Amino acid sequence: MRYRKIPDETVRRLPVYLRCLLFASEQGQENISSRNLAELVGVNSWQIRKDFSYFGDFGTRGVGYNVKKLAAQIKKILKIAVVQKAALVGVGNIGSALLAYSGFGKYGLDIAVAFDISPKKIGRKVEKVVIEDVASLLKIKKRKIKLGIIAVPEQAAQETADKLVKAGIKGILNFSPRYIAVPKKVKVITIDIAMYLASLPYYMTAI
Amino acid sequence: MRYRKIPDETVRRLPVYLRCLLFASEQGQENISSRNLAELVGVNSWQIRKDFSYFGDFGTRGVGYNVKKLAAQIKKILKIAVVQKAALVGVGNIGSALLAYSGFGKYGLDIAVAFDISPKKIGRKVEKVVIEDVASLLKIKKRKIKLGIIAVPEQAAQETADKLVKAGIKGILNFSPRYIAVPKKVKVITIDIAMYLASLPYYMTAI
Repeated sequence: MRYRKIPDETVRRLPVYLRCLLFASEQGQENISSRNLAELVGVNSWQIRKDFSYFGDFGTRGVGYNVKKLAAQIKKILKIAVVQKAALVGVGNIGSALLAYSGFGKYGLDIAVAFDISPKKIGRKVEKVVIEDVASLLKIKKRKIKLGIIAVPEQAAQETADKLVKAGIKGILNFSPRYIAVPKKVKVITIDIAMYLASLPYYMTAI
Repeated sequence: MRYRKIPDETVRRLPVYLRCLLFASEQGQENISSRNLAELVGVNSWQIRKDFSYFGDFGTRGVGYNVKKLAAQIKKILKIAVVQKAALVGVGNIGSALLAYSGFGKYGLDIAVAFDISPKKIGRKVEKVVIEDVASLLKIKKRKIKLGIIAVPEQAAQETADKLVKAGIKGILNFSPRYIAVPKKVKVITIDIAMYLASLPYYMTAI
């Protein structure tokens, strides 16, 4: 199936919708109204209806959306209906946390390989993955891995991005606070944890 | 100064704008057009103008926004113009990464205290913070800390949230993939790392 071009803002909300749908599904909910979904997500219900209008409407008047069908549809649009393998570079605190994190599976994601520069870490097994030498990063090209995760110290971020691009990576999740430059065809998402924390005080009542 | 009620969606974008403004400022940029800012953020420029309309317009036709003034204004609205102290609970991989993370300062945030349950960790110094016994969590009430960060294992998340609420916390940054229930007056932001990764494959060209 082909879809119309979906705006970036909508694409960014799709995983949030998916997250809430998976949560509703775990709770045994079969159907969900756009109003109920809107509450869970924290947006207006017209926003949800508008977002879904880009890829067809699956709702039934008075019943709402079928939770499982809608989740499957969103996974298909996000191209995570089949498992996507990712390569992690940097097994420090964040990298170790990512390897130990159990939440990737439900989004169709799998950290299949991990690399580090430290001889102390290379060869060590963290969860199900054996840490490899970052010098052999290019081998992910053969394994057809297209997703990369950068969890190295700030000053090594750009160099790591360059290596990942050379190895054929098409999407990068960047945990370094530094801006990284990549060719246009490569998509980067930067997770700036401090930034998320920064919106909390707004909601807090005066001390 | 009082502001009109700002929609959640806008509040969520303010730290993203701030992040880009701080970046532009670091690069020595004095003014920025809404178009330029829109490109950096990845939204439409009408969205930016609409968002800014909620708290006044600081732009000058043909010149754009003054980067430093706009950043200061956003900090004020987000209530991070004065440093906000946060309490971290759980000093495992994620907690340690947070303590070592240098990016909080520029958003006016400071992890002032850290707690853990493990006797091996209590008393240890990580960066500038000495890890304290989680049994003494209530003391943050006296220190007037209003921000909490949950970085404990999934099954301890709700219990930790309850304790933080009891200790007077008004805002929680939750790194556990589990949904946590809190009273209405407390604001929770959940960081689901897998979710962010889930939007990447959409942008990747076919393998």
